[in-house]
This record gives sequence, C-alpha cells and structure tokens, in this order.
Amino acid sequence: MGLKFEVVAKDGKARRGKLVTKHGIVNTPAFMPVGTCATVKAMLPESVAATGAEILLGNTYHLMLRPGADLVEKMGGLHKFMNWNRPILTDSGGFQVMSLSGLRKIKEDGVSFASHVDGKKYFLSPEESMKIQHKLDSNITMCLDECVKLPASHDVVKKSMEMSMRWAKRSKDAFIDRDGYGIFGIQQGGDYKDLRAYSAEKLKEIGFDGYAIGGLAVGEGQKTMFEVLDYAPEMLPDDKPRYLMGVGKPDDILGAVLRGVDMFDCVMPTRSGRTSQAFTRFGTINIRNSRHKEDPRPLEEGCDCPLCTNYSRAYIHHLQKANEILAVMLLTWHNVRYYQRLMQELRNAIENHILQECAKKLINDWQKGDIEEL
Amino acid sequence: MGLKFEVVAKDGKARRGKLVTKHGIVNTPAFMPVGTCATVKAMLPESVAATGAEILLGNTYHLMLRPGADLVEKMGGLHKFMNWNRPILTDSGGFQVMSLSGLRKIKEDGVSFASHVDGKKYFLSPEESMKIQHKLDSNITMCLDECVKLPASHDVVKKSMEMSMRWAKRSKDAFIDRDGYGIFGIQQGGDYKDLRAYSAEKLKEIGFDGYAIGGLAVGEGQKTMFEVLDYAPEMLPDDKPRYLMGVGKPDDILGAVLRGVDMFDCVMPTRSGRTSQAFTRFGTINIRNSRHKEDPRPLEEGCDCPLCTNYSRAYIHHLQKANEILAVMLLTWHNVRYYQRLMQELRNAIENHILQECAKKLINDWQKGDIEEL
Repeated sequence: MGLKFEVVAKDGKARRGKLVTKHGIVNTPAFMPVGTCATVKAMLPESVAATGAEILLGNTYHLMLRPGADLVEKMGGLHKFMNWNRPILTDSGGFQVMSLSGLRKIKEDGVSFASHVDGKKYFLSPEESMKIQHKLDSNITMCLDECVKLPASHDVVKKSMEMSMRWAKRSKDAFIDRDGYGIFGIQQGGDYKDLRAYSAEKLKEIGFDGYAIGGLAVGEGQKTMFEVLDYAPEMLPDDKPRYLMGVGKPDDILGAVLRGVDMFDCVMPTRSGRTSQAFTRFGTINIRNSRHKEDPRPLEEGCDCPLCTNYSRAYIHHLQKANEILAVMLLTWHNVRYYQRLMQELRNAIENHILQECAKKLINDWQKGDIEEL
Repeated sequence: MGLKFEVVAKDGKARRGKLVTKHGIVNTPAFMPVGTCATVKAMLPESVAATGAEILLGNTYHLMLRPGADLVEKMGGLHKFMNWNRPILTDSGGFQVMSLSGLRKIKEDGVSFASHVDGKKYFLSPEESMKIQHKLDSNITMCLDECVKLPASHDVVKKSMEMSMRWAKRSKDAFIDRDGYGIFGIQQGGDYKDLRAYSAEKLKEIGFDGYAIGGLAVGEGQKTMFEVLDYAPEMLPDDKPRYLMGVGKPDDILGAVLRGVDMFDCVMPTRSGRTSQAFTRFGTINIRNSRHKEDPRPLEEGCDCPLCTNYSRAYIHHLQKANEILAVMLLTWHNVRYYQRLMQELRNAIENHILQECAKKLINDWQKGDIEEL
C-alpha cells in the first residue's frame, strides 16, 4: 500500500531518489509542471511528456469548481480526462481558497468560501479535500492546511500551524490508502525553527508517504527561505520524499536541492511562457525586447526544444508582437523543457557527486546573461 | 520556368490535378489553411503538415506591415522563417487593404493606406505587391486586384474589373519568373456573366500559371455564388489550376469542386477553432453548448485527429468554459484535419468517378447533425 521511495544516491545534503506510483516512477529531484484546470496551459500532454516531465500537479480548488470532482470521476479520473498517463499530485485546495476565492471563513472545522468563477458557495474540510482528491484519482494527495503569508508573528504562525497539524491528522484519517497512491503531510511554522520542529514531529507521529515544506515562497524572499531550508528538510524523515511547494525560479530550486529537497512545483515556466519570458542556461530572456527583432539565432543555443530547434529569435519576437498563440505554445514548451533539463542536470550531478561544481557552473552561466553569447 | 499542372482525372466538371512547385506537389482539389501572420493560428507547422495540408496561404498585407518583407527575406524567406517547407501561396494584399486598413485611396497607380497596426502610411501598387511577394519567396504570387462587394451595379463592377485587368498586366510584367514559382491572374466581374467572360479573355491574353476566381464570397450568398460558378470556371483555361479565393464552408467547397474549381482557402477552420465551432462529417458542433458537459464521446467518431482520438466532448467543453488555450489548439487541429479529410474524400471520389454519390452522402450526413448519432 502507499508509495515506495528510495534514495539511490546522495551528494552532501542533496538526494537522488525514485518514487514509485501506480502510474510510473518519478525520478527526484523532480519538477512538476502545473496543470491547474486539467491542462498544462498551452501544451498538449504528449508535449509535456516529451519535455521529460514525469509528474504533473493538478489544483483541487480549480477542479472542484470546474468541471467538478464528480464529473472527473465519472470520466474515469483525471489521468484519463486530461490524457496524461503519468503520475499526478494534487494540492489540497487550501492555498487557492486563501488566494483566489471570496467570502472566506476559516474555522476549526474547515473553510467556507465563494467560487471566484460564479460566486457559488463551497465548504472545504480536510475530509472533503480527501474525498475530492480521491475522486480525481490523484497519485499523491496533499493534506489540507492553512498557509500564512510571511512576515507574521510567532503567535500567528504557531496558532495556524497547530490547526494545520490537527487538519493533517484528520486528512490522514480520511485518506483511503491504495497501492501506488499516497498522502503527503505539510510542515508549517513559517521562518520559526521551533515551530518547524514541532510541526515535523507532529507529522512524523501521524506518518505520511512524503512530507512537504509548506508556507515558503509566500513573501519572505530567497534569503529567508534558504535560512529555513538550512534546517527544515532535515527535520523530516530521511527515507521519504520532501516537497517544497510552489517553488520556484531555477536558482531557488538549485538552492533547495542543495539543502535536501526532492520535489518542486511552480507556475513560473508556464506563466512566463504567456508573458514572453524565457528561462535559459544564460538567464532569463524577454523575447518582446526589440533587440531580438532581427536576431537569426535560436533562443538558446544547444536547447533541443522545438522553439530552439526550428525558429529564430526574430520569428518568436514577431509572433509575440502579433499576439500569436504559437508564441505562447513555443515559449511554454521551451520553459517546461528548460526546467526538465535543469532537473536532469541536477540528478546527474548528484549521481556523479559533482553537485557543487555543477551549481557553480549553473550560477555562473545564469549570471552571464545571453548578451554575453553575442 | 513557372509551375507545372496536370489534370490526372475528371468526373463531370470536377478535376483531380497535380500542381508542381519548388517546395513540392499540391494534389488538387486542395484546401489551403490560412497562415496570416506567418503562422496558422494555434498550430505548430508540423501539426499542419500532419493534417495533410500540402500548401498554406500567407497574407501579404499582414506580413508587409509586420514583420516586413525585408526582414522575412533576410531570415531566408517565409518557408524558413515560419518552419514550413511545403508550398506557400500569398495573396496580393489588396483584399486586406480594402477590409482592414484605414485612410484608403485607390488610384490607377495603386492604393495608399494606413496600417491597422500603427497607422503608418503605405503605398501598394501591382509592382510593389510583386516585389513583396518575391521577397517572401512565395511559390504562388497573386496579382494585385480590386475586389468589389456584392451586390453592386454593372457599371461599378465593370470599371473596377477593367482596372484590375490593367493591374493584372502590370503584375505579370513585374513578376520575376523562376522555376517552381508562378503567378496567378484573378478573374473579376462580380455576378455579371459578360464581365466574367471579358475578364477571363484579358487574363488569358496576358497568360498566367493559374487563374483565380475573385470577387465571390463577398456578400452575394451561396445561391448566387454557385450561379456564377456554373459558368465562370469554364471561361478559364482547362490546363491550368483554378482557385476560388476565400471559400469557404464545406458545402461551398463541395459545390465549387463539382463546378470545376481546384483550389480553396478560408479562415473558417482556424477561426472557428477559436470560437468553439467544430466542423464534422455530421455538420457543425458548438462544443460550448451545455449538452456536451457530461458527454464521454469523442467530438467526431472515426476522426483521427488528436482531439477525437484522446479526449471526450466533456473535456473539450470544460477547456472552453475555462478559456484554456488547449481548447483552441485542439479544435483548430480538428477543423484543419476535417477540411483535409474532406478534400481527400473529394479527390478519391473524382479518381473513382463517384463524385455525385460522394456529394449526396456528404450532404446527407451534414444534414443529419450530430444529434442523430446519439
């Protein structure tokens, strides 16, 4: 029952792992593209798979509102509905309720809110979140938790974390265990070490298939986040995957992998694809910039994505100026591929115990910027 | 020099032909998807090729404004710029100047206008249009003409057509002939048989690689269009391709093929992909309609496109409701594929001399509607 996880290599605190689910293996460190509404925006699922992504994240909040968990279940589950046969992790819905919905009321029992789509009222409890994620047929179910924006006082973070731990217990109790499926607990505690430790202990008491580090990338900045990551991952079990939720930019991911994190998700590569920003090994490039107007070079020399293989910067610049959907399609594909190439490079480096050198080279190249290429 | 064309089979007035260009063969009757701004909207060019499309149409008006013909030429021509290695036909820019630009002034010399993008002023003459289409490296260059909206008086249509014929001569004189490249004249004359005959004679005197039937699908309705097509195609040379510009819906195409037309272009399949309308052998389907909400069936049973192969109507309906780009990508792909399947069916029917039976079956199925399938 549950999920199998094995750490196959280590380099410093960094881990190279394999997570086995009913829908296949996830090699870690892994980045999960976000498929909010049962689609990774502007990509065919076969293209997402072609980038090397082995697992997607789906958003429970969006899916419960539209098309609804019952419909997804009736259509054979999220994998079949969206034509993605690899593993899927779903969040609990809690974070989006806090950030997107209206008329929120959080009580011990759960949270009531109004849909941002049509104003309809909903109630989400740990039990309800488990039921929805089960109907979606998610391989990795996340506990319902509350996530406090930073900075926040010790008292505020403590009270919220304590409720999240009670919700974690209720989530675990309501979760229906199946082989190849699992549930992750979520550590809270903001940037307070004592609260992170307390939260980790509570989660370990309950026992989960994996452990997320929640409540980061919520306004604290990279320096504070890395300070927390200097101690938080090690508070969690060695033999289970560790997932840093909602992170991040390539350098955030690198810093977190160096500190022992195994899994990531972020809208950054897909959202940036819709705002002309491309991630490359030479840093970010905004293709709308007029300096690309007559540039015959590929976006990133050596990248094997369709954008870099078949088109000039001049062409992508033109598509952007003309507001063509193909610009979004190609930039999204490139960004998702770049993230997967980065993860592959990190996995290789850990296996070969050269992560420090790899990190130095990555940071050096990012800082060069693509101007240097010229 | 020029283009080679061969009629390999006939069935009644309908013709099954092969047009040979520098970038490959076009089997006719052929439908050309429209790639206005150097992209078939929401499709990768390899996907367009996968639908069976053997030739695209590019819009000279849009491309001369953005990114500009000089840039496209510098980037190696339109084929290389947009990563499409099959034949390309470009229109002359005239039609879009009339329908999209501002501050138009038409004189014998040419037309001056203001760009709809940034208001910048341009002048387009037959000679300038030839120069631009040459820079784009278009396989089939279209003469600059004026297109009158119908209904219009005999006098108005006559005056306009006569100027278009003078422009046709100037276009031909300015066209630079190369092997595998050609220029098409455009018959005008509205719905007046005498003017159509006069126009055809003038064009034949000049001599072209192919002949377009212009000035239809401009408000006259299908009945009038078919009445003109009852005589207009036969006025043009038998041994050259005949191209009906800007047409049309599947039943328009069928009616025109039956009357001896070989080539078509229309934004219908791509534009409809962005407005939830799907073309199928059982007529059109609007996937936004709530009756599709819980429908597990494919959009069109038996269609081999990715949408029909991998997804339910319920899923596409959901994507539409959520305004997801993937809905546009999949619906566009389906529609472009449907048009190519239709053309393949017509080509097969002509080869096998069963076009009348084929036409009856097509019309019967379109009228059934997809409700009947249930």
